[in-house]
Amino acid sequence: MPERTGEHTITLSGRPRVLGYASAVGKKEGEGPLGGGFDIVFDDARLGEKTWEKAESRLQKEALNRALDKAGYSPSQVQVLFTGDLLNQNIASTFGMRETNIPLLNQFGACSTMAQTLCLASLFVDSGAADVAAAVTSSHFCTAERQFRFPLEYGGQRTPTAQWTVTGAGSVLVGMGGNGVRIAAVCIGRIVDMGIQDMNNMGAAMAPAAADTLLRFLKDTGTQPDDYDFIATGDLGSEGSALFKMMMAQEGQKIGDNHFDCGLLIYDMETQDVHAGGSGCGCSASVLCSHILGGMEQGRWKNGLFMATGAMMSPTSSQQGESIPGIAHLIHLQCD
Amino acid sequence: MPERTGEHTITLSGRPRVLGYASAVGKKEGEGPLGGGFDIVFDDARLGEKTWEKAESRLQKEALNRALDKAGYSPSQVQVLFTGDLLNQNIASTFGMRETNIPLLNQFGACSTMAQTLCLASLFVDSGAADVAAAVTSSHFCTAERQFRFPLEYGGQRTPTAQWTVTGAGSVLVGMGGNGVRIAAVCIGRIVDMGIQDMNNMGAAMAPAAADTLLRFLKDTGTQPDDYDFIATGDLGSEGSALFKMMMAQEGQKIGDNHFDCGLLIYDMETQDVHAGGSGCGCSASVLCSHILGGMEQGRWKNGLFMATGAMMSPTSSQQGESIPGIAHLIHLQCD
Repeated sequence: MPERTGEHTITLSGRPRVLGYASAVGKKEGEGPLGGGFDIVFDDARLGEKTWEKAESRLQKEALNRALDKAGYSPSQVQVLFTGDLLNQNIASTFGMRETNIPLLNQFGACSTMAQTLCLASLFVDSGAADVAAAVTSSHFCTAERQFRFPLEYGGQRTPTAQWTVTGAGSVLVGMGGNGVRIAAVCIGRIVDMGIQDMNNMGAAMAPAAADTLLRFLKDTGTQPDDYDFIATGDLGSEGSALFKMMMAQEGQKIGDNHFDCGLLIYDMETQDVHAGGSGCGCSASVLCSHILGGMEQGRWKNGLFMATGAMMSPTSSQQGESIPGIAHLIHLQCD
Repeated sequence: MPERTGEHTITLSGRPRVLGYASAVGKKEGEGPLGGGFDIVFDDARLGEKTWEKAESRLQKEALNRALDKAGYSPSQVQVLFTGDLLNQNIASTFGMRETNIPLLNQFGACSTMAQTLCLASLFVDSGAADVAAAVTSSHFCTAERQFRFPLEYGGQRTPTAQWTVTGAGSVLVGMGGNGVRIAAVCIGRIVDMGIQDMNNMGAAMAPAAADTLLRFLKDTGTQPDDYDFIATGDLGSEGSALFKMMMAQEGQKIGDNHFDCGLLIYDMETQDVHAGGSGCGCSASVLCSHILGGMEQGRWKNGLFMATGAMMSPTSSQQGESIPGIAHLIHLQCD
């Protein structure tokens, strides 16, 4: 049963479990430092589909199907699906999940969506609203570039603070059985907007939201950053990670070596030319569904925080002079 | 506590209540048959803002603030906010709610989003994940036209099956106290795609999803359409409503005079030149938060179904030759 803890945290007293998880990524991600840990690596950015958008849908489908296979479940056993992506009107999710026949609630939290979908899937299971729920999110470099920035053919130069949208998807199946990683608590983010207007510096726009959510969670639970084996941020990148640590330090909470950022892990920062790191719904999703959950299963970590961050602007809002609102949702993961 | 009922329905055993609700609409909606029932009617499509997008954000803000006022609550008492709209990256919601400081989960269900947000708000309250939750959605004729169809200045002709996007927002506050309308159950929609490709005939694309959800709910609960004082669909319009009734009849479920469609009620179909009726997230939202909840409070109805429907395509998916996936979420409303 979900229980309010402090002002903002929701403790899941039944501590639902990860029944299965899987990641599907593109070639560049497969060549990165985490490459060996992904379930599926595609060599072709189109995955054999006619368009990049259909390829992104396919990434979601592959990630969900593999997670179901690994858990030994069929789609008909999943009672609700929480999905999300960066595309207008969430089409990667809608078209990717169209044939599953599973009741569906599309989510939009920009790059924080993996945490948002996992939060809702876990709450549904803990409350009895579903026996089995799934969370699936994706992003694709080519669909994101043409929608948010420039046509790829234009060959635009990237600024040093720009991030590289991950081509990838992750899927987590949540239920009460088995012996998988547990979801112990969630803390839902609120919008934090410090006035950053540079669409090529998302890390700076999201860092204050990450600090806001983590500070609220630590206060609610009476814990400190070094009580956790890891604190994983989604895709703050190099700029955002430095700002996040600085803002936490200003509040008297030192973030130590137990912090890592999914966007800084997924690519080789020296050789893969991704500037400030990886980003996108598929960044934290594919790292959660390989490195993080895999590491917990293998006993590397027992108690950690997964906090995906999102920049909630659109090209229209930026053209209209709006700043970039950030958000961060936190999931507390535990082994038995 | 949420309880699974049958294969797809979730019964909310605590039957949470509507603590407050409000609607804010534009001039055309104010001049329609339901005009006297809306809380706020704006004469200017821009609401005094610089852009239509900012005006849409303002509609959400006004609807939420009025609902809070009517219920006697402050924003700080709301523990989670479920919002949605039709704009790319949900910017009407994000920017409309930016200053509230309430933890936020953006939803995308196209025109079904009012039911989707209310479903989640109700589940959070019934499960104990929140004491007070709010649902807010909006649409705006001018933002939708330029994003999905043509620039307004182009003066494009509309086909007979086209619908008119409602300029409006609705907000519902859910909690356990008071004596308001109760949310008794929800049934989450799944994607139904019968291959309709005409972006000017959304009603036809959404009708099969409405039939699918209602049939599943009736089966799960062992009830019939005439057991309810009303069955309100979101925005099937004239085309979609006829198809919906036909499809229900084919399954042996006769939909009688207790059916109405929010999109057919909000405008005068003879004089307001809206072709097949109103549509948009703000259509079912503003009708729910005036005519429907008001009618239940006044004793006109005691037991009804609110089922908003959505067409989940984007201009990109349509340009790429995809058909239009429909979805419908159902909320069972009851008076004590």
